[in-house]
Amino acid sequence: METIVLGIGETLVRDDRHWASWANWLGVPAHTLSALVGAAVAQGRDATDALRVLRPGMDVDEAYLARAAAGRGEHLDESDLYPDVRPALAELRAAGIRVVVAGNGTVRAGERLRALDLPADLVVTSDEWGVRKPDPAFFARVVEVSGAKPGATLYVGDHPADDLFPAAAAGLRTAHLRRGPYGHWWAEHPDVVGTADFRVNALPELVGVVGGSPARPGAEPHSARPAFEDGTGAVGGARPARVSYLRGL
Amino acid sequence: METIVLGIGETLVRDDRHWASWANWLGVPAHTLSALVGAAVAQGRDATDALRVLRPGMDVDEAYLARAAAGRGEHLDESDLYPDVRPALAELRAAGIRVVVAGNGTVRAGERLRALDLPADLVVTSDEWGVRKPDPAFFARVVEVSGAKPGATLYVGDHPADDLFPAAAAGLRTAHLRRGPYGHWWAEHPDVVGTADFRVNALPELVGVVGGSPARPGAEPHSARPAFEDGTGAVGGARPARVSYLRGL
Repeated sequence: METIVLGIGETLVRDDRHWASWANWLGVPAHTLSALVGAAVAQGRDATDALRVLRPGMDVDEAYLARAAAGRGEHLDESDLYPDVRPALAELRAAGIRVVVAGNGTVRAGERLRALDLPADLVVTSDEWGVRKPDPAFFARVVEVSGAKPGATLYVGDHPADDLFPAAAAGLRTAHLRRGPYGHWWAEHPDVVGTADFRVNALPELVGVVGGSPARPGAEPHSARPAFEDGTGAVGGARPARVSYLRGL
Repeated sequence: METIVLGIGETLVRDDRHWASWANWLGVPAHTLSALVGAAVAQGRDATDALRVLRPGMDVDEAYLARAAAGRGEHLDESDLYPDVRPALAELRAAGIRVVVAGNGTVRAGERLRALDLPADLVVTSDEWGVRKPDPAFFARVVEVSGAKPGATLYVGDHPADDLFPAAAAGLRTAHLRRGPYGHWWAEHPDVVGTADFRVNALPELVGVVGGSPARPGAEPHSARPAFEDGTGAVGGARPARVSYLRGL
């Protein structure tokens, strides 16, 4: 593997502050909104639908601007990073891997992330590119900035439908991260097991993964759990229809 | 109305601390567990299934005891109450209404709640009774302690399947509270609209409700929103099969 590309939310950054801030803005407890987000996303709906459950017809973009205008805009700092991010990314770069951060987020999130001066060669968000995951155009941009062939580029994310499936469809190698609600919720779904080249519980496991060759019949990933459970060692073979996953586990 | 009976979680008490404490115990961010709780409950599964997504095979009762033994047991204090609880309950009692708190919770939760000295005539939890909502036996106990006939007793809760439907089946009058994730998630579900005698957004609205007669054709609830949207004024008429709601909105 030559390049590793990581998503942002729940891959590098805990989503807690983001949703707690919305909850505070809407005057509901954080647990209420977080649970609504989980309910919506688990049904294949957009996470922002949780906001519209609380405020039917809400214009999320407009509310985002109103929050910012009220001095309660988006924030992101070191404390939002999962603690393994900085050491794992540093170790990957030390191993000669190109590290790219590319995930869904606002222009401001991109600015805040770059201000953290992560050990990364490129940090970019969907709003900066003008296209969001899971749009195939997003992953075409990932391929463009990778600096390596798709087969030598590993995309790491927690969400099956936003990260894993479209990244695999773009020809990238994939690692599914069991982290955050969606990473955990669908970790054992057959489509995830059947699609992901690697399945990891934390970023340091990626150091072992990229040091070796992608999991292929006969090949053994290093520290990460191989993405097959049928005992055949086959990875990335027949993949079930992915839309089935959106209909609920 | 002579007696009002209120649930505990998300009716009187915010569930935030409860789930954040479990998240902390399991080493995941609060948003992660809260979203998993929402995903599980929205699919008709038990909230504790969220814990087992994170720790497959987890024995929740055993983990509860381990937490307590580690000095990180269940806690509940004034800050966990929704701010309208104390004034609304006081106003209800001042209006001559008997106020009962009866919801799912541990023995310790009952002790902590009683220590808050709420304006209530009785405070009791499911573990103290040895039976949990939505078991009909729980609502039989509610009828026993009401001090009034079921038709003169109003049960108030946020969860359609745990509160509203079994309370109505027990012959109680019902108010659905649009609060907490489930209160919001299913607020407009036809089964909720068709079953609830009243639908309220906050506890002070109950003062108007109990001061009048239960919503019947021709009757007008006071401050609460009437539980019908077909313009006929009919309440509690034909009720759709309730199990359908468990299959998802």
